Amino acid sequence: MRANPLNILVHKYGGTSVADEERIRNVARRVIRAADQGHRMVVVVSAQGDTTDHLIDIARRVNPSPSDRELDMLLAVGEQISISLLAMAIEAIGRPVISLTGAQVGIFTDDTHKKARIIKVNSHRLNQELEAGKIVIVAGFQGVNGRGDITTLGRGGSDTTAVALAAALGAVRCEIYTDVDGVYTADPRIVRGAQKLDRISHEEMLELASLGAQVLHPRSVELAKQYGVRLEVKSSFTDVPGTSVEEAGQMENVLQVSGVTSDKNIARVAIIEVPDRPGIAYRVLSDLARGGINVDMIIQSVRRDNVNDMSFTVAETDLDRTLAILGQTIRDIGARGIDYDRDVAKVSIVGIGLREKADVATAMFQALAENGINIQMISSSEIKISCLIERGQADLAVRAIHDKFFMGGLQVAKEAG
Amino acid sequence: MRANPLNILVHKYGGTSVADEERIRNVARRVIRAADQGHRMVVVVSAQGDTTDHLIDIARRVNPSPSDRELDMLLAVGEQISISLLAMAIEAIGRPVISLTGAQVGIFTDDTHKKARIIKVNSHRLNQELEAGKIVIVAGFQGVNGRGDITTLGRGGSDTTAVALAAALGAVRCEIYTDVDGVYTADPRIVRGAQKLDRISHEEMLELASLGAQVLHPRSVELAKQYGVRLEVKSSFTDVPGTSVEEAGQMENVLQVSGVTSDKNIARVAIIEVPDRPGIAYRVLSDLARGGINVDMIIQSVRRDNVNDMSFTVAETDLDRTLAILGQTIRDIGARGIDYDRDVAKVSIVGIGLREKADVATAMFQALAENGINIQMISSSEIKISCLIERGQADLAVRAIHDKFFMGGLQVAKEAG
Repeated sequence: MRANPLNILVHKYGGTSVADEERIRNVARRVIRAADQGHRMVVVVSAQGDTTDHLIDIARRVNPSPSDRELDMLLAVGEQISISLLAMAIEAIGRPVISLTGAQVGIFTDDTHKKARIIKVNSHRLNQELEAGKIVIVAGFQGVNGRGDITTLGRGGSDTTAVALAAALGAVRCEIYTDVDGVYTADPRIVRGAQKLDRISHEEMLELASLGAQVLHPRSVELAKQYGVRLEVKSSFTDVPGTSVEEAGQMENVLQVSGVTSDKNIARVAIIEVPDRPGIAYRVLSDLARGGINVDMIIQSVRRDNVNDMSFTVAETDLDRTLAILGQTIRDIGARGIDYDRDVAKVSIVGIGLREKADVATAMFQALAENGINIQMISSSEIKISCLIERGQADLAVRAIHDKFFMGGLQVAKEAG
Repeated sequence: MRANPLNILVHKYGGTSVADEERIRNVARRVIRAADQGHRMVVVVSAQGDTTDHLIDIARRVNPSPSDRELDMLLAVGEQISISLLAMAIEAIGRPVISLTGAQVGIFTDDTHKKARIIKVNSHRLNQELEAGKIVIVAGFQGVNGRGDITTLGRGGSDTTAVALAAALGAVRCEIYTDVDGVYTADPRIVRGAQKLDRISHEEMLELASLGAQVLHPRSVELAKQYGVRLEVKSSFTDVPGTSVEEAGQMENVLQVSGVTSDKNIARVAIIEVPDRPGIAYRVLSDLARGGINVDMIIQSVRRDNVNDMSFTVAETDLDRTLAILGQTIRDIGARGIDYDRDVAKVSIVGIGLREKADVATAMFQALAENGINIQMISSSEIKISCLIERGQADLAVRAIHDKFFMGGLQVAKEAG
């Protein structure tokens, strides 16, 4: 017999929420409160505080470049500590509980250690324990490959674990507890007037997450959209309502712009004087993809007959590896050289309303122009417009754009409730 | 294809041997040296230094009495850290290596968390990795039960893991590396003239281990005897030869007495005025056995018609639980009361030669008498004589007995080589 999916609720608590014994006890009380409201609880936890960074430090002292497989073996320890401690805290209150590692649940991933993708989730053991009336605590961030080796899911992986379990179990909702109380129209540390959103669509959240808003990991939002999981972002320290991530179709009135965000972990790379032959862009991008580098904004501009410049952005943390890979590539394709700039940031606006309103881009460019901010590159999708600007002007840009849309009365359709 | 068992060597390193990065590198070098001598290496490691105690402390702060299952989940982390770090240290020297948890190897145990017994060892993955030319690092102390839950083997469990793997793989030898360089005729910290033994039989080692010599865990010696595994105890800090634990039949000349040892973790319990009816001793001992209490020396003495006193020893750490269990038992059997004494120790001599020489007991009692040490209880087996004495006299007793046998020329048969 399977646990009634209508009653299953998934909670996920990040590292700061379980950082010490007192916070673990706090999480235990929250979980029990939700159980007392009639939910069957599955709780996903991350490693405590800076445990993961601490483990990486120890590893580097033994071996400056350990293999990904052994690093995953070591890092998985962090969540195993969290789940057993949280289970003990719940036992102390006298509730039936069991902790399970990624391998024990049966979270199967591919072989890509350090950033594995979940292939399949086995819900058998979970349902068995839920049926037995237990609160189930699951290690986030980790899985197991076909050989039984431990893999980790990369940064933000615990969000992905939580959504994957919610999808596999058909849970009513997946609540992501974190140290902020929801998704804001802009980072409240940068923009004083930033407003918390009651609701946001998966698509908008996906763009915001990818753009560095750092509330939810993009893969978790993708999964939630794909499997129709209702996600909610809440604070683990307060009881105020959070932000609900929903199907766009279910939201009657939408904000023209839902959020303004910036990403400072970015660098611009330009390949100078690329011969204008078919297949060149493909060669550049496939060399980088093979090296595991994600390329973001891409612009190809004609310099003079038969020679182009090609510019794109990568994560700044990938810049050194990008330059190393391109060294060979530009020799092979006969380009003149490489130019790069770390002093850049990307500011973006995201909103489902962008689909229909062409004047939104104009308003964004106007806000930047009024503040003397030069736009180096532009890229846009259906629900997003991004501009590459000088890094030192990023916060000013976010404030200017936020003021334009949220304070200047430009918003056409206001959210219903 | 299976790895050639003739070449497989099992090393086991305790917590002090992997306590920090430098020691881990030292172990890596030792393992590689053995590999370079043509061995296929399987290396069992314990948790670093006081990691296990540290984890227990953290657990108690969350829950003063956590369940055994969750404690095992937490404690297993200790060995997982050690194996990954040792694997990284071996990678740093450029050798193919892989670390495996107890679950990954397939060390199957019963359900008794915190002191599980190994039921079966799966050698498939081990042989596969050895065939692939890898040094295999295995987490000691841990296994997995039928449901896939992590179990731990109790104190000294890593020794047991090492011997079980050696047996399963048909290894040539199992070398236990520790912070002492072998088995001595007495504890060198107590007896200055203590001599290192080149060889000792499984039976003697078993008695010494059970008697608190703390070099090898008794279960590992039992397993070694049962499966004919050649065990060797060596220091991980020096290169001097250690002590080889062998089949008694293969040792031509044996010492009359191999070792003198004492155990201070002991308490004497007496049940006063037990009615002399059949089944009373069985009832007392079975009540204690159900409570997980091991009873050691047992004496029943007639006090007057139809009333006996019954005395026995238990580990001092089990005393409180023993008294709690016996409270009900003595009411049921109608005994008058319980008396107990923590201020006792057990001194023992062990030797295969004891089988044939009756005067050995006399010499032991003489050594105690000459030093004014009163004997409270005596028990003996074929190869062991134990006396219960006052705890404060234990070290004096060990020295006196050791002098009598090893300095006083009482030894009849000297070891051959």
